[in-house]
Amino acid sequence: MVDILHRVGIKSSVGQVYEALTTRAGLAAWWTRNTQGEGQKGGSIAFRFSAAGVEIGGFDMRVLEAVPAQHVLWQVTDGPEEWIGTRIRFDLKQSGAHAIVLFQHQGWKAPVEFMHHCSTKWAVYLMSLKSLLETGKGTPNPDDPHISGDGAD
Amino acid sequence: MVDILHRVGIKSSVGQVYEALTTRAGLAAWWTRNTQGEGQKGGSIAFRFSAAGVEIGGFDMRVLEAVPAQHVLWQVTDGPEEWIGTRIRFDLKQSGAHAIVLFQHQGWKAPVEFMHHCSTKWAVYLMSLKSLLETGKGTPNPDDPHISGDGAD
Repeated sequence: MVDILHRVGIKSSVGQVYEALTTRAGLAAWWTRNTQGEGQKGGSIAFRFSAAGVEIGGFDMRVLEAVPAQHVLWQVTDGPEEWIGTRIRFDLKQSGAHAIVLFQHQGWKAPVEFMHHCSTKWAVYLMSLKSLLETGKGTPNPDDPHISGDGAD
Repeated sequence: MVDILHRVGIKSSVGQVYEALTTRAGLAAWWTRNTQGEGQKGGSIAFRFSAAGVEIGGFDMRVLEAVPAQHVLWQVTDGPEEWIGTRIRFDLKQSGAHAIVLFQHQGWKAPVEFMHHCSTKWAVYLMSLKSLLETGKGTPNPDDPHISGDGAD
């Protein structure tokens, strides 16, 4: 099992970051505009991505844990085969004026090339989360920076 | 042992990417302007970083392997304790108009918080490499985007 790890510090409160991780409006403003569902514990969230106006896939998550200002844990229930069963965890802590986000995408079966891609792409989306909270504007899909040469990603 | 993994696709040739990974001028244009040394096999490279005009540390690498248009492998010989002995590998392959870079920072002893930070920061620097080759302009230190609340990083 291998994990994707990231860390960003955001000039914000952990409460505000938690809101961006657990509300439809918050998630839609940094990860993907096409977000549906319920981000509280026990909820399910459907994230869908598009390129040139065409939907290209996405992920369904079950919210296993959501503790205000502390952490959020999702389990991937549908999406690319490599993602199914993996877990995505955000741990939050306040450090002075900054909310520190420790991110883990846990439980990949193998360090395949797609995992390399997703690691870089998660960093880009976490920078979008940071931008959203610090400037009021994120870059959720379909406005996300492209990182690969394979079309929409 | 845990690794940091990333992947970017760059509208460029693998030869041009290889040059940006193995020449002082290339490295200085995407990772840190304060790069000294020799990027060919057997060489040593000193990367130093600064913030607000003050040097804040860096890394020394030995170039273990450098195969044109294929791969580059560095060993960290000095720097933060967590980095010493780890290896940084860039594998290149051409896919149509894009050079695909598979990146690994291998051999971390533990998934410490600093590793989370470095993972995100590597993604930001790989986006700088991509930008350098696609637009002629990267964002090497000290012009790099800050990702944490801890000062210069």
